[in-house]
Order: sequence, then structure tokens, then C-alpha cells
Amino acid sequence: MDKKGRNVSKMKEYWSTRIRDLVPYTPGEQPKIQNLIKLNTNENPYPPSPRVLEALRQNLDERLRLYPDPECSALRSALARRYGLKEEQVFVGNGSDEVLAFAFQAFFGVGDTVAFPDITYSFYPVYAKMFGIHCDIVPLNQDFSIPVDALLGRHHGMVIANPNAPTGMELPQSELRRLLEGNRDVVVIVDEAYVDFGGSSALPLLEEYPNLLVVQTMSKSRSLAGMRLGFAFGSENLIQALNCVKNSINSYTLDRLAIAAGTAAVEDEAYFSACCQKVVATRERVTKALRDMGFQVLDSSSNFLFASHPDHPAQTLFGALRKEGILVRYFNQPRIDNFLRISIGTEEEMDRFLQVMRALIGQ
Amino acid sequence: MDKKGRNVSKMKEYWSTRIRDLVPYTPGEQPKIQNLIKLNTNENPYPPSPRVLEALRQNLDERLRLYPDPECSALRSALARRYGLKEEQVFVGNGSDEVLAFAFQAFFGVGDTVAFPDITYSFYPVYAKMFGIHCDIVPLNQDFSIPVDALLGRHHGMVIANPNAPTGMELPQSELRRLLEGNRDVVVIVDEAYVDFGGSSALPLLEEYPNLLVVQTMSKSRSLAGMRLGFAFGSENLIQALNCVKNSINSYTLDRLAIAAGTAAVEDEAYFSACCQKVVATRERVTKALRDMGFQVLDSSSNFLFASHPDHPAQTLFGALRKEGILVRYFNQPRIDNFLRISIGTEEEMDRFLQVMRALIGQ
Repeated sequence: MDKKGRNVSKMKEYWSTRIRDLVPYTPGEQPKIQNLIKLNTNENPYPPSPRVLEALRQNLDERLRLYPDPECSALRSALARRYGLKEEQVFVGNGSDEVLAFAFQAFFGVGDTVAFPDITYSFYPVYAKMFGIHCDIVPLNQDFSIPVDALLGRHHGMVIANPNAPTGMELPQSELRRLLEGNRDVVVIVDEAYVDFGGSSALPLLEEYPNLLVVQTMSKSRSLAGMRLGFAFGSENLIQALNCVKNSINSYTLDRLAIAAGTAAVEDEAYFSACCQKVVATRERVTKALRDMGFQVLDSSSNFLFASHPDHPAQTLFGALRKEGILVRYFNQPRIDNFLRISIGTEEEMDRFLQVMRALIGQ
Repeated sequence: MDKKGRNVSKMKEYWSTRIRDLVPYTPGEQPKIQNLIKLNTNENPYPPSPRVLEALRQNLDERLRLYPDPECSALRSALARRYGLKEEQVFVGNGSDEVLAFAFQAFFGVGDTVAFPDITYSFYPVYAKMFGIHCDIVPLNQDFSIPVDALLGRHHGMVIANPNAPTGMELPQSELRRLLEGNRDVVVIVDEAYVDFGGSSALPLLEEYPNLLVVQTMSKSRSLAGMRLGFAFGSENLIQALNCVKNSINSYTLDRLAIAAGTAAVEDEAYFSACCQKVVATRERVTKALRDMGFQVLDSSSNFLFASHPDHPAQTLFGALRKEGILVRYFNQPRIDNFLRISIGTEEEMDRFLQVMRALIGQ
């Protein structure tokens, strides 16, 4: 029995009621073995900009004894310049996961209902449960596209990933607009973690829709998963709500080096855009190669592919690839349990991947 | 009117009910002006260990494109070794503020009541409000000591800072034991942000009390406020609860460089202990000098002083010091509105501080 006379297993003695039934998110494996080809967590295969490393070197000194700027002004103003917004429309956080967690708290109250697709980033239902929010889970269409009509006007808010994960498919801007038009009274979060690889951003719609929050990350397109940098764009009102949450939890979520790294990354547009183009070119080549092997490959606007073979179970391929030192991601859940999610690596890594895959399916 | 028919000011349209009445924490000023003597946020005046800077240099490379270790094993095992615990008894987070925010969620449910003193770290009531927890605010004794008897057996949990802030006073271990003995059914959080400057740690009591969570930080004694590193020690059961919260919010709260910096800092025991000794020696000298000027200075076991002069209002001194380029902290709140909190700087900074203070009070 716990302090309130409830029966609680010994293992969860002292745990608050809010967390006793939580099932946390499971991140993709971060293996400690060397020399694996790591195509399982959608990291960028190319290093961060040399300007990022230089900015970090410039900041390795005794100033680390001082708190960072809680406003992260340097980074926020670099993002504002790059995306043509005011600094007051920019929020930054410790990875887009933290930004999303703050957004759930900022815009969805206890007992509210938030809508999102059945197949999407699997952290959304975890946030909802953590913060006492109900989920209205809307099935994707048969072809894995987002069912915009089903998402119109029924909820206290919604979140979609665009391009979606793990499908990689994008919702065109005309459909985004329809989604926003039909949900003017509630906050619509568009999680654009993968948008820089060719997706349609909702950013041009910001001015028209004060209820739109666009969330992005430096983990993928700016090769900085190791530095934990996420950001959000929205009306000043929405950004103030995020600041209110942040300043009620942790005043300094970004350390001095993360701020320096992020600022330099945003300022090196040429490097960023060259990296994205390389990834997109490799993605197109690998898509074609997999289709030639008989795979169904969804049209990807991201830095990963979602692929299924009619004759070879995904779970078997997943295990066989791992034995060959190639890590991809497999989700054992309805509708997608015969798919593999394959991050786009370097040209050489993908050559090896295709070679192994050809051998596995007997071609 | 909002989506639920409530009247909401335009400025908080779209904000969730949980944040509409929040008053966030206000951190000490991080001025952008150079050459100030900064004695307002309890930073360490000495740089981080040279081994920290070296470890950072070793990690400035293309690996920043990869996610960090979500378990932070290197750092957790360094802390476990240093403090004689198992790795499973160690939790690390993005500053002790994040660790405390996770602990409030892990151990106190919506509608529970958490007890803490009226004069203490002013983030505690903010966390409580943020997470729907009631506060039972217990006045410190007249001499600013913690009223242990008033904290026995009435609540769903409690948090004390030891040494307390902004008083700097410590609760001796015998009193800590009495606090734990009288609260065996609930979690007792002991926030030891300042303990390395001569306070009594609750750590030796961990083995006896599975309901004790000790929270510490690298911001003060290890000169790493700029890297955001906090940690907690407790029974495996409590640490699992913290992991459950973390993994429901953000899988990767520490970036690769923070993990490397923290690990190196913990491993350089000699540097750490020399810095703490210097700060303590300066503190003792400044305490005596201020008392000689007629100040009441509370006995500090921390890296700051809490001081009040019978003839010179604290708020006036605060403003006058600022004009001279010296920042200290002033809290305009009952019982302590005639006190200044003065962080311990270098010997030279404190000489200058004492010189200015002598002039201000006309000596």
C-alpha cells in the first residue's frame, strides 16, 4: 500500500500516480560496437559544417564556468534571419523532442484531446500520456497519406509530422492549408524534423495562421544530433507560451557550446544545402535500386526510406542485415510490421547496404 | 472565448489551462556588458579543470552528427565511482533544474502536497504549480534554520535545499536523519547544489533510506554552469522513476560535449577540491570583513553569503553596487528584503567588492 492506501507493486513504490502506467519512448539503438553501418536513427552521414567545429573551438575556455544566455539570443536571431522571421517568433530547445514536450504542455491541458495519425512519430502518444492529455488517433489512409478530412474541427489540437515518420511521405502545402483552415481555434503542431530533404514546409503559412507551430531540428539536416538542438517557429503568442513552460521547468536548456554550434550551423547555408542535396541524390538512387529488387518503397521526402518486400518478411531482413553489420529500424506494430526504415547513409554505405540486400533476397 | 467557451485574454489565446496562471522562475541576470564583477548567480570564479577543456577538444569532430548515448553511461559510471555507488543509483540531467523538474513529476502526483520552507530556492513553487502539485510552505525558524519538527509526517513529499538558498545555512546530518526517519513513506528530495563548499551531505544516509533523493550540480563546485550538468543519487527504484519521466519527455537530454565535460570534471578530484578550498577560504575572509563593517552575515556553508546591515537598506546597497559595476542578488520578498546574496568571487573581485562596500557604508 502506498501513502494514499493504494496497492502498489514494490517496484513502483514512491512513484507518483502520473507515471505508474507510463510506457516511455524507445529510441533507436546507439550501439557501442565500432564499424557498424548505422542506418537506424536517421542521422546525417556527413559531418557538421567546419564552421561549427571552429565556433566550438572558439568557445572552449574559462567562460564555461558561467551560465549560458537563457534567451539564446545569438541562436534565435540567426534562425530569425535565416527564415525571415522576428526573433520573437523563434523558440529553441534541447532537441526537437524537448520542444515538442514543451508544446504539448503549452497548448494541451489535462483532459484535452489531441489528434494525430496512427502511424507517425511514436513519441506523440507518450507525451500525451505523460501530460494527462487524451489521444484521438486517426488512421492514415490506405496509401499512408494523412487523412486531412478526418482531422478537421473535432479536437483540442493536433500534431502531424511532415514529412511523416516512419513513412517519409509529405503532405503538400495545399493540404496543409486545408488542415489549418479547418482548425483555426486550436493549435496545429507541424513537426518538420525531415523537411529539409525536399518536403513542403508550413513556414509560408505562419503569417496567416497564428495557431500554427512549426517544429524543426538540427539533428538531421544540419548533422548535429550529438548537440541536441531543436527549434520552433510560430506567432509571438505561441512562442511566449513555450517560454512560459520552459521558464517553469529549466531556465537554461541549451549549454554554451550548443548555442555556439547551432548558430554557426544556421549561418553556413552553403554547406547545409550541399549536404541535403547529397542525401537526396543518394535517396533517389537507392529508392530506384530497391524498387528494381521488387521492394515497395514509399515516396520519401526525408532522409530515410520505408520499404517492404512481398516475398521477404521485414523482421527477417532486419535480423539478417544486423548480422552483416548493418543496422536499420524495424517497428513491430500493426500496418507497418512488414516494413523497414532505412536511413540514408553515404554513397559507400548505401552501396554496401544494396549489395547485402541483393544477396539476402537472392539476386 | 477559447475552444471550451472560457473567456481568455487575447494574449493567452491558445494557451493550455495548465499554464495560464503560471508565474515562471526568474533567473539571475546574465549581463551582456563586459567587465562587471558578477557576484549574482553563484557561479564559480575559477575556470573548469584543464582536463575538461582537453576532453572537449578530443570530442570536437564528426561524431557530433551522431546522437549521444541516451544512458550517459560514461558520466554515470564516473559519478558512481567517485561517490561509491552503483551506476543504477545515478541519474544525470541537463542541469539540476531539469533533474528537480523530473523529480517533482516522478514523485508527486497531481493534487499531492509537497512541503518546503518559505525561504528557499524559488523554483520549487514554480515546479509545483507547473505540475499541478499543492504546496505546503513551512516557515523557517526565526534564525533561518530549517524547522525539522514542522516537516515530520504530514505530506506527500518534500524538498529542502541543504545548504539552503539564499541563506547558505546547512542542516546538520543528525537533523537530516531525523527528517528522513519521520518521513519514511514519502520521497524526501535534498537539493545539495552547494554542498561541496563545506556542507553535510545526505549521501551517507542513502543506504538506509530508499525514499531519499540527493540532487547535485556541476554548475557551482565544478565550474560548469555553462555546460548544464546536474545529477541525482538515490535507490534504484527512485532512479528508475526519474528515467521513466526522462524517457517520456526527451531521450537525449545531455549532448555529447556535456557528457564528455562532466566525465572529465568528476575525474579531476584534485582540481575540484583545490577550487572548493579556495572559495571557502575567501568566503571566511569576506564573512569576517563584512561582520567587521557591522553586517549580520549568516553562517554560510555555500559559495555565497547572505548579509544584512542594520543601517543600510539592502535594496539601496544593491543599486549602489550595480552602479560601481558589481552585481549581487536582491530578493524583494518578506523576511529577506533587507538581505543581499553575494556570490564568492576571486580574491581580487572580493577585495574590490569590500572596498566599494566600505565606501558605501561610509567607513
